[in-house]
Order: sequence, then C-alpha cells, then structure tokens
Amino acid sequence: MQKSNCRKKTNPDILVYSFGNGHADGSGAQKDLLGGKGANLAEMVKLGIPVPPGFTISAWVCHDFNQRADQHTNQSPGLSQALLDQIHKALAEVEKQTSRTFGKGDKPLLVSVRSGAAISMPGMMDTILNLGLNHQTVEALASETQNPRFAWDSFRRFLQMYGNVVLGIPSQIFEDALEEKKAQLGVELDTDLDASTLRDLSKTFEARIQAHTGKPFPQDPWDQLLGAITAVLSSWNNERAILYRRLHGITGLLGTAVNVQAMVFGNLGRTSGTGVAFTRDPSTGENKPYGEFLINAQGEDVVAGVRTPLPLQEMSKVFPAVYKDLLEVMSILENHYRDMQDLEFTIQESKLFLLQTRNGKRTAKAALKIATDMVDEKLISQKEAILRLDAAQCEQVLHPQFDPETDKVHLSWGIPAAPGSAVGEIVLNPQKAVARAAAGASVILVRQETSPEDLEGMASAGGILTARGGKTSHAAVVARQMGKVCVSGVQDLEIDETKGIVYIGKTTLKEGDIISIDGSIGEVFLGEVPLLEATLPKELLRVLAWADQYRRLKIRTNADTPKDAEKARGFGAEGIGLCRTEHMFFGEDRILHVREMILAKTQAERKKALDALLPMQRTDFCGIFQAMDGLPVNIRLLDPPLHEFLPKEDDAIQAVAAELGVSPKEIRRRTVELGEVNPMLGLRGCRLGIMFPEIYEMQIRAILEAAVDSRKKGIDPRPEIMIPLSSTDGELKSLHKLVEDCAGKVFEQRGLECSFSYGTMIETPRAALTADRIAGVAEFFSFGTNDLTQMTYGYSRDDSASFLIPYLKEGILEEDPFVTIDREGVGRLMAIAVQEGRKTRQDLKVGICGESGGEPQSIQFCHDIELDYVSCSPYRVPTARLAAAQAALLS
Amino acid sequence: MQKSNCRKKTNPDILVYSFGNGHADGSGAQKDLLGGKGANLAEMVKLGIPVPPGFTISAWVCHDFNQRADQHTNQSPGLSQALLDQIHKALAEVEKQTSRTFGKGDKPLLVSVRSGAAISMPGMMDTILNLGLNHQTVEALASETQNPRFAWDSFRRFLQMYGNVVLGIPSQIFEDALEEKKAQLGVELDTDLDASTLRDLSKTFEARIQAHTGKPFPQDPWDQLLGAITAVLSSWNNERAILYRRLHGITGLLGTAVNVQAMVFGNLGRTSGTGVAFTRDPSTGENKPYGEFLINAQGEDVVAGVRTPLPLQEMSKVFPAVYKDLLEVMSILENHYRDMQDLEFTIQESKLFLLQTRNGKRTAKAALKIATDMVDEKLISQKEAILRLDAAQCEQVLHPQFDPETDKVHLSWGIPAAPGSAVGEIVLNPQKAVARAAAGASVILVRQETSPEDLEGMASAGGILTARGGKTSHAAVVARQMGKVCVSGVQDLEIDETKGIVYIGKTTLKEGDIISIDGSIGEVFLGEVPLLEATLPKELLRVLAWADQYRRLKIRTNADTPKDAEKARGFGAEGIGLCRTEHMFFGEDRILHVREMILAKTQAERKKALDALLPMQRTDFCGIFQAMDGLPVNIRLLDPPLHEFLPKEDDAIQAVAAELGVSPKEIRRRTVELGEVNPMLGLRGCRLGIMFPEIYEMQIRAILEAAVDSRKKGIDPRPEIMIPLSSTDGELKSLHKLVEDCAGKVFEQRGLECSFSYGTMIETPRAALTADRIAGVAEFFSFGTNDLTQMTYGYSRDDSASFLIPYLKEGILEEDPFVTIDREGVGRLMAIAVQEGRKTRQDLKVGICGESGGEPQSIQFCHDIELDYVSCSPYRVPTARLAAAQAALLS
Repeated sequence: MQKSNCRKKTNPDILVYSFGNGHADGSGAQKDLLGGKGANLAEMVKLGIPVPPGFTISAWVCHDFNQRADQHTNQSPGLSQALLDQIHKALAEVEKQTSRTFGKGDKPLLVSVRSGAAISMPGMMDTILNLGLNHQTVEALASETQNPRFAWDSFRRFLQMYGNVVLGIPSQIFEDALEEKKAQLGVELDTDLDASTLRDLSKTFEARIQAHTGKPFPQDPWDQLLGAITAVLSSWNNERAILYRRLHGITGLLGTAVNVQAMVFGNLGRTSGTGVAFTRDPSTGENKPYGEFLINAQGEDVVAGVRTPLPLQEMSKVFPAVYKDLLEVMSILENHYRDMQDLEFTIQESKLFLLQTRNGKRTAKAALKIATDMVDEKLISQKEAILRLDAAQCEQVLHPQFDPETDKVHLSWGIPAAPGSAVGEIVLNPQKAVARAAAGASVILVRQETSPEDLEGMASAGGILTARGGKTSHAAVVARQMGKVCVSGVQDLEIDETKGIVYIGKTTLKEGDIISIDGSIGEVFLGEVPLLEATLPKELLRVLAWADQYRRLKIRTNADTPKDAEKARGFGAEGIGLCRTEHMFFGEDRILHVREMILAKTQAERKKALDALLPMQRTDFCGIFQAMDGLPVNIRLLDPPLHEFLPKEDDAIQAVAAELGVSPKEIRRRTVELGEVNPMLGLRGCRLGIMFPEIYEMQIRAILEAAVDSRKKGIDPRPEIMIPLSSTDGELKSLHKLVEDCAGKVFEQRGLECSFSYGTMIETPRAALTADRIAGVAEFFSFGTNDLTQMTYGYSRDDSASFLIPYLKEGILEEDPFVTIDREGVGRLMAIAVQEGRKTRQDLKVGICGESGGEPQSIQFCHDIELDYVSCSPYRVPTARLAAAQAALLS
Repeated sequence: MQKSNCRKKTNPDILVYSFGNGHADGSGAQKDLLGGKGANLAEMVKLGIPVPPGFTISAWVCHDFNQRADQHTNQSPGLSQALLDQIHKALAEVEKQTSRTFGKGDKPLLVSVRSGAAISMPGMMDTILNLGLNHQTVEALASETQNPRFAWDSFRRFLQMYGNVVLGIPSQIFEDALEEKKAQLGVELDTDLDASTLRDLSKTFEARIQAHTGKPFPQDPWDQLLGAITAVLSSWNNERAILYRRLHGITGLLGTAVNVQAMVFGNLGRTSGTGVAFTRDPSTGENKPYGEFLINAQGEDVVAGVRTPLPLQEMSKVFPAVYKDLLEVMSILENHYRDMQDLEFTIQESKLFLLQTRNGKRTAKAALKIATDMVDEKLISQKEAILRLDAAQCEQVLHPQFDPETDKVHLSWGIPAAPGSAVGEIVLNPQKAVARAAAGASVILVRQETSPEDLEGMASAGGILTARGGKTSHAAVVARQMGKVCVSGVQDLEIDETKGIVYIGKTTLKEGDIISIDGSIGEVFLGEVPLLEATLPKELLRVLAWADQYRRLKIRTNADTPKDAEKARGFGAEGIGLCRTEHMFFGEDRILHVREMILAKTQAERKKALDALLPMQRTDFCGIFQAMDGLPVNIRLLDPPLHEFLPKEDDAIQAVAAELGVSPKEIRRRTVELGEVNPMLGLRGCRLGIMFPEIYEMQIRAILEAAVDSRKKGIDPRPEIMIPLSSTDGELKSLHKLVEDCAGKVFEQRGLECSFSYGTMIETPRAALTADRIAGVAEFFSFGTNDLTQMTYGYSRDDSASFLIPYLKEGILEEDPFVTIDREGVGRLMAIAVQEGRKTRQDLKVGICGESGGEPQSIQFCHDIELDYVSCSPYRVPTARLAAAQAALLS
C-alpha cells in the first residue's frame, strides 16, 4: 500500500506556489502539497534548469474543494477569493517573466494546465494545452509567429481538448468534424489542412460546443483558466481516479495539485522539437542516455504515433548545442535526485525547456543494474540500493519472459498466479500432460481447477491455466512451488473435456493447439510467443549479498523434493520451512499404496500398505537431508483429508479398482464415506494422525530412520517434526507421545540417535489464542497463514473468488488477505501467538510457511512481530532475502 | 465440569480419621479429604445418629499412593509406615467400641471396606463386606450367632467378593462353582444351600483362588485389610474410573478416600433387615418418606433383586420402633443438610444403623417441587432454591416423557440431540412425512442427515432420527428450535431409501413400522412406548419468578414464526434474538419463488421473483411484530448459500423444472455452478447481500414496511436488522448504505417512519478481532457461537463427529465446544469483541444467539463478560432464565 503522511494540518495561507527564472516558492521536498510534477518543476528551477515559468496550486486547494463539494448534486463548490487573488498575482508574475500578456496584446501568453498528485495516478484529468487562445489572441499568435497555420491549428486543438476535458463533450464529435473536413477536401493527414481550413474547422468546433453545452465557448481566457482548474480539482474524485486509488491502495493523499505553466512550442519549425529522455536505459539499466524526439512537433504528437520519433542520440546531429545542454541537464538531475530520471523536454527555436522530471520506471533487470552501478559510482549506498529495489520484482528475473518486441494475439486475462512465461500445446487432463511431455511436447495444462490428483500432470506441464481460483488456489500454490507458470481464474474460459475443446473468450481451440501464458501479468495469448531465457543476474547476487548483512529474519524454503531443496539452497535458502509429505504420496510408485492404505478394511491391511510406503518416504527424506546438510528441515506430517487421494473420475476409478483388486463400487462407496461437507474443516491435519496413528507413525519412523541413516553417512540432518492444524494442546500432547515412543524404538533398532525438535503449525485461530498452552508442548511454531486467513475471515480460498474479486474492486477490502497478511485480524492473532508462546517458552522458534512468507509487506510484518524466519517457494527466496533486509533497514 | 478446589497443600500428619460412639475426627465439611461417604459418616456420628464405628483413610493417601505408582510396571508402591500405624490405632479403637477383636477371639470383628471420593464416581472398586473372616473366625461367628449357615454364607460371599475385586479373579469362576453345587444337589436358590454345603463351597472357592493366583487365600485379616485398601487406592486410576472422570469433566480431585467400618448384619433373622430411604419422593418431590426394605437381608440382596423389597411405610408394621427411629433420623438429617437425603440403613437385631447419607438424586419435576416446598418450609432461601436447581433440567419438564414404568425394547443409542420423547411411524423422506402427517399419522423422520430441504418434513414429524451428526447438526439445531424430539448420530443406523428399509443394529424395519425415540438420553426403542404428557409445573413458574429478580442478563428467543415467538413469550422471552429469514423461504408457497430468484438469468427476472416474495415476508414480519409487541425483534438477513435452496434429488429436480418451466439440466447446471468446496466459508451471509443487493433490499423493505404497517395498527414494533457473517467493517458500511437508502424510500412511500437499529452477527474471528472498527458501524453485536466455534477451532460441525467424539472420549477435549462455550479460545474472542466494541460505542448492545445461548455454563460466561442478553430456542427460555439468575448469584 502506498501512503502519504500528509493529512489535516492547519489551514494554509499559501495556496499558489510560483516558479520560474531561477526562483521557486516551493521545493522538491513538498510532493504532498505540490504533487510530484509541481515539486520537481520547483526543484528544477532552483537547480537553474530552464523551465517555462508558471505556478502550482497546492493539493490543499483540491482537498478543500472536494470537502465542500456535494457528491450528490454534482454542483461545483467554486474557488475561494483568496485562491483567485493568488492566481492573479502568480499569473502576473508569469506575464512579467515571459513579457507576454494573458488573453490580449500582440504577444499573448498561452498556458498549459496539468494535474499532478504526490503519487502518479492515471485516471484524473491530465493536460490542457494552449489555454489563453481566443478569437483575438489566435490572430496575434499568427502574426507574431508569422505562421497562421500554426496559430489556427493550436486553436482548434485547444478547442478540442477543452471541449472534451473541461466541458465533457465526447472526442468523437470533434473527430467527426475533422474527418468530414478531410473527406470534403480529399486529404488524408491532419497536416494536409491549411490555415484557412483550420480556421473553418475551429468555427465548426465552436458551433458544436455551443450546440452541446447550450453556451458559447468562453472567450475570456480567465474563464478558460478557472474552468480548467475546476475540472482538474473535480477529476480527483471521478470514478476512474477513485477506482485507481482503491486498486493500488493509495490512501492519505490530500488531492491533486494543479500546474499552470507558460506554453513553449516545439512545433514552430525546424529549430523546434520535443522529446522524452531517460538518464539510463530503462529496460537494461545500461548507463547511457536513452529516449526519442521529434522535430517540429508538440508532445502529443509523440503519443499519437503519427510520426516515428528519432532515437535520442540523433539529436547530436540535428540539435548539437541543445543536445549538449540536455546531457548537462540530465547529469545535473541524476546527480541531484540520485536516481535514474525520466524527462520531458521541448525545444522552442533552439532553446531547451524542461517540462517534467521524475524517477524513471524500469524493468526488474534494469533496476538491479542501475542500483548496483550507482553503488559502484558512489552515488548511493548499499543500504539505499537495497531499499530502492522492489523486492517482489526479483522473482521476475528468475523466470523466462516473453519477448516484449513481438506482436501478440491476446485471448484473455486471468489472475497472475505464478510468474513467468510458458508456451505449449493445450492438454485437458493430467494423464495426457504426462504422456505428451514424455513425448517431448511443451504442454499447458488447462483445467477447470486443479486438485492433488493433477500433481503429476502439473509437474509435466510448462504452465497451468485454470478457469477458477485465485492467487492461492491449489493450481497457483503448487505452480509457484514447482516454479511453473500459472494463470488462474480465467473467467471466460470454458472447457469441454469430452470433446477436447476449450473456449477462451470468443476463440474456440482444441487440444494440441498452441497457446502462450504470462503468469506475471495474467495474460493468455494465441499461438507461440517467443521466449527470452533468463539467467540469474550477477547484480542480483551482489544485492542479495548486501541484503544478507542487514536482515535479521532467516529465509527458508517450502520444498518437498531434494531437487527443489537444492534449487532453493542455490537461491540462498537457509533451511526448509515446510516439507509437505503428502506431495510425496502422489508419486506414481506410491499413490497405489496410499490408496490401498485408505481403502484398507482393517488396521492390519492398513499397516501393510504403510509398510510399503515407509522405505519410499525414508528415501525421500534422506535425499532432502542431504540437500539441506547442516540446515533445519521442517517436515509436516500428513495434512489433507484422505479422500483427496482417491480417484474421482470413472476411468481413474476403474483403473485403481483393477490395480487394487477391489470393485469400483467399493472405491466409490469409500469416497462417499470419506466425503465431507466442508473438507477444509474436517478430518485432516493432526486429526487424521490421532484417528489413524499408524499413518503418522510410519511418517515419523521414515523421518527418524532417514535422519539416523544420514548421520551414519556423515550428513548432519536437522529434522523438525511438525504437526498440522492443531487447535488444542491436547492434540499435541497426544501426538508427542507417539513421536517419543517412535523415536525410542527407531534409535534403539538403529543403534544411533539423532536430535530433532517437535512443534506445530499455527493455522487455527484457537491455536494462536491458546499459544501459551500450545508452547508448553511445541518447541516451535510455524504460521500457516493460508488456513489461518481462511478461518479468521471465514473465507474458503477455493470458493472466495466469487466475492473476493468484487470486494477488492469496490474497496470493501483494501488488499487480498491471501496475498498480504491482514495485520488487524490475522496479524493480531500472530502477534498474540508469538508473545504468549514465548512467555511459556523463551526460546520458542517461530516462523511462517504460508504463501505470505514470500510477500514483501508480509515479510515486513513478520520482522516487526519478531519471527525467527520466513519460508517461501524456492523462486521467492531472493525476494524474501531482499525484503527481510528492507524490513530490518526500515524498522 | 465438576471441579474440586482441593489441590496440593502441605503433606498432612493425619492420614486416618476415626468415627463412632458420638465422636468423629472429621466432619461433613471435609469432603475433599474424606470423600462424600466418609464426611457424611463423620457428620452423622456427630449428630448422634447410630453409625457402626470405623475410620476413613484420607484422599491424600490415594494421591500419594498414585503419585508413587509406576504406571508401566503395575507394581504397587506399598503403604507407608505412618499410615499402617494409624490404621492399627484406629482399628484398635473400633475393637474397643464394638468389644470385638479383629481376626480372632470368640467375638470376631468383621469390617466393610468401601471407596468414596468427593464426587460420586462409578467405576472404582466399590465394596468388600465381611472382611476379617478366616477359618478360625468363621467358626467363632457361627457359634456366636448360633447360626452356622449365616457364618459360612458370609464367608463364601467374602471369598467371592475379595477374590473378584481384590485379586482380580473373574466372578464367573465363583458363579460356576455355585451353579455346579446347586445342580449337584438339584436345588434352585442360593438360600436352599445349607451350612455344610456352604462350607464345602467355600473350600472350592479357596481352591480356585489358589489355582488362579498361585497363592493361598490370605488367612491373616491384616493382610486381607491391607490388600483391600490397596485395591481401592489402585482402582482410582483404573480405566473405567479415568474414563468416567473424563466424560464427566471431573478434575482437581486428590483421589478417593477409603472407609473401613465395623460390619452390622441385616441377615441375622427376622428382627434384622436392610433398606434404602429418601426423605422425600425422588420422582414427584412429595414431602413424604420414600424407600424400600428387606427383612433378614444384607444390602446386596436388595441390589441383586432376588427378593422383592417392601415399601418403606410397611416398616411401621414390621419394625414399629425402628421405623420411628428412622423417621427421627431422616428428619434430623434433612434439617441438618437442608436437602432431600438418600439413606442406606441396616437393622441388626432390632437396632438401627445408618451406613450412608447423601443428597438424593431426583427428577426435574421432583427437584422443582422439593426446592419450592423447602422455601415454603423456610428450610432454604429463594436464592438457595435457585442455585440448587439444575437449570438444564428445566427443559425436561416442558416435553412429554416416556412412561418410566413400561418395559421397552431397546434398538440403539445415538446422541441426545433434542430433548423429549416421540413415537411414530418411520418415514424416509420429507415429502412422505408431510403426506403421512397430513393423513393424521405420527411420524418419525429417519434420515442419513437433514438439510434445509427437509424442513417441512421435519415440521410435520414428531421426531427426527439421523445416522450422522451431533448435538449441533442441522437436524439437532432445527429440532430444538421447533421443539421436536431428535436423536442424531445413530452409528448403526443404515437407510435404504429405495427399498424403504432401515437397519437399526440387528433389527430390520420398514417404512410405516412404529418406533419410539427419547431425545433426552438418545435412545431408540422398537414399537410404541407410552408417553406421559407433561404440563408446565407451577413450581417452575414460581422459581422463574424468583430468578427474574436476580438475573442481570435479558433472555431472548430464537424464533422464525409468530407461533414460535408466542410460545417463547409464554415461557418468558423478552424479545427475539434471532429470526432466521431463510427459514421462511422454505414455506410451500415461497420455495418456488426462491428457486425462480436463484435461477434467474437477469437482474430483472430476479427482481420479479423477489417482488413475489416481498408481500409474504412482510406478512411474516407483521405476525412476529405482533407477537413481540413492544419487545425487540432481531432479524437476520439471508445467510445460507443459495444452492441450499435448490433441489438435489432427481424427483425434486424434475418437479421444480416442470413448475418453473426450465429444463432439469438447467437446474443441475446452476446447482453445480453455485456448488462450493467449503460452502460454510463460501458465498453466504453478508457476502450474498453484497453480491446480490436486490435480495437484501427485498428483505429490508419487508421488515420496514411491516414495521410501519404494524405501527399503523397500534403495535409497537422494535426491529433490529442484523447482517450475518461480516468479517470487515467495509461490508457493514456497504450494506448500511443499502439499509438507509431503503428505509428512506419505505418511510417516504408509507408516510410514516419507525425506528430500527442496525448491527451484525459476530461469528468470524476477524469480526471479533476488529470489533473496534465494526462497532463504528454496528449498533449491536450478536455472537453466533456456532460459526465462531467452527472457525476458531477449524471444525466443521457437519463433519467433526468423526474426530470430536473420540476426542471427547480420550480427553483431548474436555468439553464439546459446540455445546459449551470454549472460554480459552472462542470465549477470549468474545471478550475482546465486547471490550473493544464498547470502547468505540459505549452503548453497544451485545447478545448471543448461537446454540450456547441456552446452555447454563455458557450463560454463566455470557454474564461474566457482561453481555446484555442471551437468546435461545423457545423451550430453553426457562433454562436460560434460571441459569442467568444462578450466574448473577454466583458472581
């Protein structure tokens, strides 16, 4: 969430801040009052950089205006006399500095009016240019510039912009008039219209404005100015702006500032022009000027894309002196702001004017390069480099990305559930995914939603696309865990598995067709979009090494296989925070025994199946202990309800029945018997372990036997046995006995002991609320924030998309609590658990292994409440290392 | 939960407390140390009542003994020397007082050994009689009493008891020997055996004891005594005793005391006898002696039921003097204990001895009569009367009961889910229940489990029997609400609906067969058990009137219909705490419109269906406002997920499809679409209201239009509009706007206003944790402890039976949190919500409407955390009134 601290102070006297000619009332530090644009204009002026003179109306005025506005009547509350007086005065100063007069005389002053809040925010009214033109001044401008075409073109553009933005007339009305005129004259380009045609057109525009508003276009430039200012102030609370603030969690701003500035013209001939420049390359981070410009053009021409701009470097040929000035300005600004700048400039008759500067947006890769370069250049410190990076972005550079240069055919949008980009052929079930992948195909598994049955198919696929589920759906969680790409919750995806057809939006595709999915932004494309393979940049390694010096939180990973564990260790994981034993149950060689175990009619039959699983689990753990030699490995005993392991579809039931030698009916019967109304709150977690102690016993044996065997091989295993879903200390006491008994037996049989610790997930509200008692038995806590959030809110993450997405859109929720820890509710339970747990057991180790463990804001919270570690999926480990350092530096 | 406060004090010097001959070391106040039996023996001696002399070994000894015992080796830790010394001394005193010698001489002393803890507790070793007999003393007894048969019969009984209880030999071994002997002699009754046969039999018994234990039967009475004492001490921790304590939540006791007492004999001839007596009638409460006795018999003969005892009053003919003494003793004891007493006595050769007195158990009806009579008799105060009653029992007297005198054919046990008794024919689906009830039949609806679809069927049935679900299952909750009888969770009930057959245990029944169910104890009987129709006793009315003077909590009721509301008001309800609007949706005339509304494809279609429902809901509310004229009526807007309203079975789907003119496929499709993985945590509660505002709008309109219309009729409606399942203040703000807008429109249209309040259920942990913010919008809170408990523990009440019942059995949970509020977890959230909510809004009204609202311990908690009211089903209102008064008096 982005927040500003500027709230209600006492009512200010100064409402308008002038700038120009080397002097500015405001400064770069006053973003809250002047907005980013206004503050930077003031700052540039103070730095001696050429900026057209002007003034900024403070955000206080916007605050006051909207306070006084009646939301219902839509009536403007008007501007105060004090404001009008200050505007008058500031405008007079601009007239003086430019030697021009506003609305009259032979050198008329034209101004631009722009909004600009402390945080950049699309959605508000943006820009009006050439304000001050009317029937008199347009003629004056024509004779002054000796360029009637320019003057009339400026006027008709002003009419169009003002008509649309201030008076609310649809653009189409003006565009139509323009097109009619061109059709009449049989010309194609706007530039083919001459001065007199443009004069006619401006008459047509004026007539249409009168027809639409019932009033003539305001000829008085003062009326024009106040109209434009009022429009900017009102636009702060238009629907789009409110929605944008909600979506981006922007709160605490006063409002927008309004910048009024003398116009300069890049379209006065071959010695004029306009452009944008970055002080470094925003996509690679390379330290060289980057940008583009147009000769004889205004800023909007760059945006309109009518003419192709030239690369910035070309300026050295076209405008050598100006280019030198620009490089000088860029150097001053970057050194002043100590960050890469994004500039807008205009050249009017060989004179350079800066219209805007701001910190430039950049790719994750560029951000890393710029930050490390600037440290090397001694422009910023290591700490600043760490704080400046967006920790969440780190993950991007670890995944292959689509080539941004390619044209793509958009199919639909979904939820960006697991980052990266994947291309492959559509398959509609996991078996086919396995088969096609085995045959060498790249595969995108397309499902209504995924379940644990789909795991092997998911592992074989390059990407997963689902119609249902959000960022914490099964598909999303598993995909991130596996490092697979996932787009979930594609609303207009429909699957007809029997026909082998999918409908995505209006497009019908069949199995085998190629699609491309971008899990970083949630987009689906038709066909193959070329991929850029990413490598772990050395800059990231440097930044993470710096980060490790500052962070207090340890970073662990969630990994279920030796391969994942190794990968995560390579990314810097300092142990495993969550090893989900059930994921091992889905291996091809195991699932049959698991099903045998579930379908067993007697304890003896169940034990037989478990005996077959024991050596397999032991081998898994041996591999993980080896990969995490010397580091803690937290293993969670079986958690999901047993019915998740039984096949659900007819084919699968037939197959399993045949394999196990039971009737399909028996399997269906058992599935129904095990079925639950709310499986999330049913017979799962430690409840399973208490009802079927033989299952946990097998798992405990496998862990401890593997640990002892590893020790014999010279490996240093550090197992932590974790009990899921406890809600009472009674459960933990009961299972502790099982663990101790089992350990005694294993150590005696193997003739060697090994130390281990015993603890629990804290994922029910009650476990958190009774942490003092829980810590009497548990040596460690690990927050399972997924379940804890589900139960605290009463939101099933499988079902909540239907209301959660609208809730976020409408601002009922500020953030998705499954993504960022909800400090007030879930976080409060966590804080209670940490405090009260440590009262009972001073050296209680506390971590988090929910999805939030890799999310920067949540990591900040974990740091604040003094957790010992966070654990996240392997690809998020770098993010977590950086975020942990940021948290430490900010607290 | 029963608790004793006596825990570890310093180690005592006195281990043995003597009593007899008008003097006792201990007193009635020392139950914790002497147990109930020992303390009352001491007290009786002090009161001058004839009691055979003896001594009590304190519960401290048991505590110490079991502390020292090694649970694993099963080796007895032995008795301390200090204890042995004190036993010696006390025994000598008994010898002195009885002029008998223990284990020798011509007048041998025989003793009984009995366990007795502070709280009466079956499961421990109970009684050994005639201890002290051996080959010598049996002869001495024979010559002293001139009754060799008596002496040898006493000996063989002692051998049998001691062999079984102390030495652990199965009773069958002795019974077999006895039966063999009788067969040999061709006799039928024990009493047909003469002295010499009994002597032979005792030899056989001794031989079998030696064979079984490898050691001869201990001849030394001192060894016998120490063996018996040790057996009692060990029995404190036998499995049955531990289980009993767990099941009854008995904690904090030191252990059991051991009572050793000189034997007196009721079987010494026609001037001897034994009996039990109650000072008042324990089933009616009538103030007259009640009990029975046997001439020439020992206590165990009464239990064995070999001979039929005589009514107590007959004693006036058989033992006139003794009877007078007994009445005198009864009067002394009742006046002393100020409660109805249950006595055991023995007459030895025309002399009366009291062996035990305790507060007598009684029926609910008797409890009320005794309490009110004793107030009238000035024996106890009104406050004492209130505190002495079991509030939960009150409900019993409001329901018809089975005639306890009838022989019944037991079929199975289930969970006592809704109290009362019902008889009816088995029907297996709700439609048939409606049809058969309409035809005049009494019906028991037998279902796997019930769902809202079954509501009409349930309303038509007299009782509900389910195979699944506990005390808070749908069937249970709805049945209690409706005042129907329910037995749920009958494990060995299997239903074959297609064949119309049910299997209950080993019995196969078909639809139409008659069964009887007792919802107070959870039993199922074959055929018709006669019912005793109950009336609201005047004693209850008196007690409740007293209670109302003391309670601080208001009592409301959960009622969805005018009929329920009236009934509850009759029971003393002071308003409605929960009116569930969805229950109205299931009415025969509404469900079609509800389904139309759900199946609507457009908002217009949905509105049309809602428009049809509006007048119906308005009529409902008018009726309820009338029934609750002048009292608050809390109405909860729609809560359950929409799919609950759609038909699930093929027949029903066909029928609905035909009615609505859509295809069955469409209904199935929509049902699947609305289906959820965890519906409890899905699109329900206020989430529905936000996603489909038109539904809530209709309900709000109906409430407010009904309120205004009621005012016009001179009724004083006090509606409270309650939002279910909120977890953020954002939801409440959003819906508050809807309510306000709607109210504005209704009041304007109707030309009259009415006041109402706006509030929310607190049933998600997050709502409780953010109560400060929630109270910024809500004017009242109502705790939904069912959902709150589900989410706090992570227990789905539909699914938790599979582990909750074992958890309770094994003591992992001390109490069922769905029955009694869990103070540590759920209760802590409630306390946080009350405190922090009232910080924001001082006059915040807080109540509870979950199932726990009618449970006495939970009511105590609600009093403690300063709720304003509790709300419960109509039949529980009297219980709640009484419990609220008890809570106030105890705090």
